[in-house]
Amino acid sequence: MTRVSRSLRREDESPETGRRDARKQRTRRALLDAALDLIQGEQSFNSISLREVARNAGVVPTAFYRHFRDMDELGLTLVDEALRALRQMMREARAAALPTSHLVQQSVQTYLRYVQENERYFQFLAKERFGGSRTIRLSIRQGIQLFISELSTDLARFPFLARFSTEELQMFSGMIVNQVVNSTELLLDLPYGDDVQVEALRKTTEQQMMLIFLGTGQWIPKSERKPKP
Amino acid sequence: MTRVSRSLRREDESPETGRRDARKQRTRRALLDAALDLIQGEQSFNSISLREVARNAGVVPTAFYRHFRDMDELGLTLVDEALRALRQMMREARAAALPTSHLVQQSVQTYLRYVQENERYFQFLAKERFGGSRTIRLSIRQGIQLFISELSTDLARFPFLARFSTEELQMFSGMIVNQVVNSTELLLDLPYGDDVQVEALRKTTEQQMMLIFLGTGQWIPKSERKPKP
Repeated sequence: MTRVSRSLRREDESPETGRRDARKQRTRRALLDAALDLIQGEQSFNSISLREVARNAGVVPTAFYRHFRDMDELGLTLVDEALRALRQMMREARAAALPTSHLVQQSVQTYLRYVQENERYFQFLAKERFGGSRTIRLSIRQGIQLFISELSTDLARFPFLARFSTEELQMFSGMIVNQVVNSTELLLDLPYGDDVQVEALRKTTEQQMMLIFLGTGQWIPKSERKPKP
Repeated sequence: MTRVSRSLRREDESPETGRRDARKQRTRRALLDAALDLIQGEQSFNSISLREVARNAGVVPTAFYRHFRDMDELGLTLVDEALRALRQMMREARAAALPTSHLVQQSVQTYLRYVQENERYFQFLAKERFGGSRTIRLSIRQGIQLFISELSTDLARFPFLARFSTEELQMFSGMIVNQVVNSTELLLDLPYGDDVQVEALRKTTEQQMMLIFLGTGQWIPKSERKPKP
């Protein structure tokens, strides 16, 4: 993604600016990666220092400020990177209009694979969802809220869900997203490369999604309920 | 709870031992409370030191070791206190055999009130579920797993659920517990004393529980499924 935008830019810039820009991008990336690496163990984002991040990225602390105002801004960039790519991916998965059961199967599989491939980002999200930095905590919350809203919009397109109020669809998507967040956190806990457990988790997540859909099929829309005597 | 066991013990002990024991219990309590207070803000359990805890409890660091081997042991005690009381409370709520909808309503209400009354404990659980200390993280996970198992056992007693395999019941209870954990974390995020939002959360949680029950009503037990051609 960075690479693409860089090459696009390069076309209408002098080779010199292009090189300088490429160097700048590399350092920025190095700082982001350094932060991700530092919080993999017992450390939390709040407990790592700007100096540590700079050192691990191989730059002097002052260089940090050419890329981020402070640690929070770096953290917010990580949240943004993690969630933007994820939203794009899920949108594509949903765009493929398949029967519900296949749609669920495919989305769950695509999603869990994505989490495994971007484990460092999800470790970061899981930790910081309740971590020390309020700014980062809130941006993760907003990201999750955005997923819920987008999913509600998608659900509204299913004929058997169209009759529900936005509020009801939000409640359904809320459940789906909660289950997904939960599976993500369970997946992050699994010992690396334990395919049997990953497969079991995939199956359970799929079933939980299906069960939610079965529930919505039985749900009586507020609009159609008889007032209580 | 501490008070009870203390007075019980006192009967068959000399007044002197009783007083000494009471003093010991007070210090122990003070250390636990000091830790809970220290992690309310930006701090996490991993980032507070034994010295800080001792200072906030008004004792010298060496006194700490008369009560806990190390910070992890203190942390595990907090997890244990939080979950034991909670399990007891939920058991009582479920023991009152009411129709599902009332059972759900009552359990959700009792539970959310309990979280509000023990906010510091739940802040601790929410933070440390992904916090730095692996020991504490695991004991929280095991606690949640225990809830899921106990709930499965209760579900097995519902006539309309009895036909499901233990595996299926575990999946259902897993969903219920995930939704509850999620609501807990949303509740902890709400601005203090915002009754309108708390009420909305209570309503949504209730609906999500009901939707899961509706889903289970439609779920075809593995045992009754036709093998795929």
